[in-house]
Amino acid sequence: MQVIEHPWFQRLRHVKQMGMASLVYPGAVHTRFHHSLGACHLMGKALDELRAKGVEFSKEECVAARLAILMHDIGHGPFSHALEYSLVAGVTHETISRLIMVRINELTGGLLSKTVQIFQHTYPRKYLHQLVSSQLDVDRMDYLNRDSFYTGVSEGVIGYDRILQMLTVREDELMVEEKAVHSVEKFIIARRLMYWQVYLHKTVLGAENLINNILRRAKYLAQNGENLFCTPALHYFLYNKVDGENFKSDPAHLELFCQLDDADIVSAIKVWQTHHDFTLSLLCKMMIERKLYKVMLSSAPLDHMLAEKQEIAMKKYGILPEDLYYFVFTGTTSNNTYDINDENIQIAMKDGSVRDISEVENALVNQTLARPVHKNYICYLQG
Amino acid sequence: MQVIEHPWFQRLRHVKQMGMASLVYPGAVHTRFHHSLGACHLMGKALDELRAKGVEFSKEECVAARLAILMHDIGHGPFSHALEYSLVAGVTHETISRLIMVRINELTGGLLSKTVQIFQHTYPRKYLHQLVSSQLDVDRMDYLNRDSFYTGVSEGVIGYDRILQMLTVREDELMVEEKAVHSVEKFIIARRLMYWQVYLHKTVLGAENLINNILRRAKYLAQNGENLFCTPALHYFLYNKVDGENFKSDPAHLELFCQLDDADIVSAIKVWQTHHDFTLSLLCKMMIERKLYKVMLSSAPLDHMLAEKQEIAMKKYGILPEDLYYFVFTGTTSNNTYDINDENIQIAMKDGSVRDISEVENALVNQTLARPVHKNYICYLQG
Amino acid sequence: MQVIEHPWFQRLRHVKQMGMASLVYPGAVHTRFHHSLGACHLMGKALDELRAKGVEFSKEECVAARLAILMHDIGHGPFSHALEYSLVAGVTHETISRLIMVRINELTGGLLSKTVQIFQHTYPRKYLHQLVSSQLDVDRMDYLNRDSFYTGVSEGVIGYDRILQMLTVREDELMVEEKAVHSVEKFIIARRLMYWQVYLHKTVLGAENLINNILRRAKYLAQNGENLFCTPALHYFLYNKVDGENFKSDPAHLELFCQLDDADIVSAIKVWQTHHDFTLSLLCKMMIERKLYKVMLSSAPLDHMLAEKQEIAMKKYGILPEDLYYFVFTGTTSNNTYDINDENIQIAMKDGSVRDISEVENALVNQTLARPVHKNYICYLQG
Amino acid sequence: MQVIEHPWFQRLRHVKQMGMASLVYPGAVHTRFHHSLGACHLMGKALDELRAKGVEFSKEECVAARLAILMHDIGHGPFSHALEYSLVAGVTHETISRLIMVRINELTGGLLSKTVQIFQHTYPRKYLHQLVSSQLDVDRMDYLNRDSFYTGVSEGVIGYDRILQMLTVREDELMVEEKAVHSVEKFIIARRLMYWQVYLHKTVLGAENLINNILRRAKYLAQNGENLFCTPALHYFLYNKVDGENFKSDPAHLELFCQLDDADIVSAIKVWQTHHDFTLSLLCKMMIERKLYKVMLSSAPLDHMLAEKQEIAMKKYGILPEDLYYFVFTGTTSNNTYDINDENIQIAMKDGSVRDISEVENALVNQTLARPVHKNYICYLQG
Repeated sequence: MQVIEHPWFQRLRHVKQMGMASLVYPGAVHTRFHHSLGACHLMGKALDELRAKGVEFSKEECVAARLAILMHDIGHGPFSHALEYSLVAGVTHETISRLIMVRINELTGGLLSKTVQIFQHTYPRKYLHQLVSSQLDVDRMDYLNRDSFYTGVSEGVIGYDRILQMLTVREDELMVEEKAVHSVEKFIIARRLMYWQVYLHKTVLGAENLINNILRRAKYLAQNGENLFCTPALHYFLYNKVDGENFKSDPAHLELFCQLDDADIVSAIKVWQTHHDFTLSLLCKMMIERKLYKVMLSSAPLDHMLAEKQEIAMKKYGILPEDLYYFVFTGTTSNNTYDINDENIQIAMKDGSVRDISEVENALVNQTLARPVHKNYICYLQG
Repeated sequence: MQVIEHPWFQRLRHVKQMGMASLVYPGAVHTRFHHSLGACHLMGKALDELRAKGVEFSKEECVAARLAILMHDIGHGPFSHALEYSLVAGVTHETISRLIMVRINELTGGLLSKTVQIFQHTYPRKYLHQLVSSQLDVDRMDYLNRDSFYTGVSEGVIGYDRILQMLTVREDELMVEEKAVHSVEKFIIARRLMYWQVYLHKTVLGAENLINNILRRAKYLAQNGENLFCTPALHYFLYNKVDGENFKSDPAHLELFCQLDDADIVSAIKVWQTHHDFTLSLLCKMMIERKLYKVMLSSAPLDHMLAEKQEIAMKKYGILPEDLYYFVFTGTTSNNTYDINDENIQIAMKDGSVRDISEVENALVNQTLARPVHKNYICYLQG
Repeated sequence: MQVIEHPWFQRLRHVKQMGMASLVYPGAVHTRFHHSLGACHLMGKALDELRAKGVEFSKEECVAARLAILMHDIGHGPFSHALEYSLVAGVTHETISRLIMVRINELTGGLLSKTVQIFQHTYPRKYLHQLVSSQLDVDRMDYLNRDSFYTGVSEGVIGYDRILQMLTVREDELMVEEKAVHSVEKFIIARRLMYWQVYLHKTVLGAENLINNILRRAKYLAQNGENLFCTPALHYFLYNKVDGENFKSDPAHLELFCQLDDADIVSAIKVWQTHHDFTLSLLCKMMIERKLYKVMLSSAPLDHMLAEKQEIAMKKYGILPEDLYYFVFTGTTSNNTYDINDENIQIAMKDGSVRDISEVENALVNQTLARPVHKNYICYLQG
Repeated sequence: MQVIEHPWFQRLRHVKQMGMASLVYPGAVHTRFHHSLGACHLMGKALDELRAKGVEFSKEECVAARLAILMHDIGHGPFSHALEYSLVAGVTHETISRLIMVRINELTGGLLSKTVQIFQHTYPRKYLHQLVSSQLDVDRMDYLNRDSFYTGVSEGVIGYDRILQMLTVREDELMVEEKAVHSVEKFIIARRLMYWQVYLHKTVLGAENLINNILRRAKYLAQNGENLFCTPALHYFLYNKVDGENFKSDPAHLELFCQLDDADIVSAIKVWQTHHDFTLSLLCKMMIERKLYKVMLSSAPLDHMLAEKQEIAMKKYGILPEDLYYFVFTGTTSNNTYDINDENIQIAMKDGSVRDISEVENALVNQTLARPVHKNYICYLQG
């Protein structure tokens, strides 16, 4: 597959899958490139299983589905979640992935049109999209196992082999056979555990806010005419206003985006440590010297702590009042163990009926778990 | 430790941990000897962790606790669950374990008195008993992992390392720290999965009923004066009425019991295949040739199927009406994902309070899961 | 495959793969049944790889080869090496495996004739036999990994996946591609390590001599008219003279052999502990109470130690001079890291030539390693 | 330990352990930071074992040895082997590691003096240095396992647990007990395999030559006054002549070196793709688009192929004669399975004597293996 050799895809070699999480889990430096290959491999296995069960699809559809999962993350920028709040504010990586697929499709004279349809969920065989993106997609199967493996949090490991073997299709919808209910439950619980223990680990949360703030500050300075060391691609996104419209209207935009990877950000941050702007310099030093925010998580709001922490920030670190929000702030984060409203997991019962995983007998994933859980956090500087 | 070298303990080398389950999972031939050593090892690690956290106990108590877990299964006979319904009807393996400990304690002049107290839950430091026997004991931690490993059902694997590190003691009660809640949840779910997928696998259920029926039939014939090939120890339990009282009143009883292992049962069953009693012979052939009962599991009662299956048994296999219950019968089985009424799992919250695992915020193990689930089954001969 | 369900094959469920080694490695209780299934699985993978490379063979040949490996160990008796020196003196398990295959072939009207040919190395496609039995056969690939896994000696683990992928066939001979040389070297070293560390472990060596001596003594007593508890099948082999001729001339012989498994031996030894023959009784107690021989291994002969150890055996244990050889004796054992004279490993070089693994450039497996290593041992009773 | 938090050490988070190997093994993106932590962990285990065997050393020495291994790679630059041939020509990473330790020792008023002595092998307890750097050091134990794990070449996995347990010290020299001979042999073979299969993989070899040539060309252009995008630290090393003397005489030098990591190189190479120098631009595009050199390995010299490949490079790619050596060139590489002249592995025999691993009975690592193996290679552009 030529897609893999395309520089836009090779770029993912330099985009870490877990962003800042390697600051907590030093082994978690695996890349989106590796994840994409892995997910593509699982897609192949899933389709083999389905074919063996008599589900019919063409060789072309098989290739299209594998390309759709191979490219599902191609729109991820470096430290993606940070970018989405700063450099390319408001444009999600899914949107960019789609735009890149559309663009490659144009350039190749329509070779990817089925892939684009599957990705956009407009292709008739719905299960192909569900394998790419749903609550039981091969994306999750790959990243849960991969992230468990590289963080060493062995509790997130899932037995995807058995789940893949139990996949089935009824009326174009992806489902799993009844006897795999317990395996699917365990998959959902593993994901729940990875969220609360790893992805929303308070230090990781703090580090992601930190890089977000660094890029916001840099963009602010750039917009005000300050000089900043950066690669040409990063320069473009710092010195121009970028929104979804630019991406759609201007192909150059996309090409520049596809030149950005972790190295652009990391090399700039190292240099910015000595920038004359005190706020930018301090934020960058916090990152490079790994003196991250202190973070507290709680189910109750934490805003009452702001005043005291702001006081410390001003007195001990000399932060100006107008820049306090870079150093002391609150936020919320949330996670759904299972979401009954979004591409949910359907069980093909032995008696021919179909049930939601939350509605089988003695369901583990019941109404309680199907509600999102919100947590509040506060980031501040050590007192 | 001399206990390990004692023939009563070495006997466990010849008692399979999972009984008949190796008929379904050919690798699951590991022994109670191996499990007991493993659980003893985990007890050592648990006590090391607790000591490192400042929980105080003497070296003597440490040895006593390790001996208690080492011997917790010493009263298991071969194919234990079958035996408890036939040869030693009504005497549980826990009772026999206790009697053996008491007996060794007498013989050694009181060396095991602390061990006996811990096992019986009469020792002041309650957590020592809870490590031996509760819903988060090292017994479960060892057998879940060991059984997963040997069956190849990797989904039962649990990260006991992390749970052990998070154990703590408050007011003599064993608990786990709040931040291990998700790990404990995963432990409970792994056990749930192992029950429904492995321990209560329908073929295993059928095989256990089969060996139970073989021993019941053999005992019936023995009580009626029939001649049966068997080792002297097995002879004793076939030709005598045995109940809990015998065990307590007559030490010879216990010694004969401690000579029984899987080999006594297997070698007898092979010989009984050619016994002139048609029922015994047929049951034994079913076992040796692995032509086990057909089994159906259902949440609804299955008694309505009995008549049809009895008909087949009589017509196709020539079973006499009075012996039908050996070949066609129903039963129920049940499992608790979590039992809130029995040595439950307590969480030591960061704020100093103590909560049941089913009562923490966003609990996975909630009221629904804390109810036992019952299933009905029917065993019959292939039509 | 019906072969698996045949009682003669199911018997292997009760024959431990590693015999007495579980006395040293408590987890090593896996069975020849499990190993045979595993080797059969690897044969399937090997043939898939070869077919994918264009090696041609029929579906029938594929089944025949898989059956040949499935049944390659069907002639193993319980504690096989002991048996071969006592009960069925002089008849190897390979011979019995072959006889059983021939017998089943007769009973099924020739269904196994290709299998028998492959096993006997008379089938034209030589590589099929080489997959069943050579220095790079799937038998070794399975047992090295399986034994490593169950003993916990992780150093014996081999990467059979890569070796299987690199198998090839030239002029009907099995070989491996040049680029797998290092993997094959590692396979040979892993086997070397397993031999010296596990299979020839001195305690295992002692235990195998012990069971051998128990059976020899029991046979001696039986031949002299003594009464011994045993199952009917074991009775036959104790009370009759058995050699290769009987096996070939009398089918009943083979059928009785196929009723023997570990349980016959273990249940008898337990009972024999109280036999009035002092020698038999003492040997059996040594086994059951795990008071095994002391063993010394050395490259130099150890016969000079016999006199002193015999003295101890007589004085401390009251052994009669004529029975000393049951308790104090010497022997030799040997192992070949690689044998250049027996079904050796051939490398298909990139340049089209074929070389022995010991003759490639910078060969690890050179002349030195290709010589057998002999070791002397002495077994005796603790002083 | 504050060392870990020092920016000079944190820098290793952005230096990949295996350099360009991730182009072949996409998972091999683990860092020198992670490796250093792992080796430090193994050092702790090794010292625990030695202490348990009665080897005496102080707590201070223990910390010093752990710091020595923690910092043994601190002098590695990004894509280290490339750097040593270009930017910092002639200065090895060992030299820089030592200079950094000396420098930190000065800055901390002598806190690291024992560490420096151990690293330089001037400390009286020789075994501490041997644990840091010898043919059986914890460095190798960590990187072999880690590299196997991340590349997925499971055959390189070694059982370091057993080797660590068998370490011992006699007369201040590190050795291993006789019974670990087979484990050590397996360790050496695993390393041999990793070298020929992974570290000297021809594509990896080509990629390392490529980055080396990129940096050489960039330095050549810089020295000739060309303008090149780069971070300030990289600028310094491109635009100045650097040799070992500078490092020793000028502390600023070391500080700039300690600002370099993979991001500086990767971000520059991306930008250099559009540089007007044809040679630099082409080399950089080859890297980013992963159109690497074609490579052939052979035990015979390959220089006779140069003319033909040069012809192709000029005709097909338009390379100028004077720049051909960037695109078509030969070289040699070599590896020692075991080197008998350099910190060799000593075995403490049971009889009290000490032997080299290559001199024990039936040694695997014999004279033949103890000679270095040289291979020739040629890199060229696809025809």
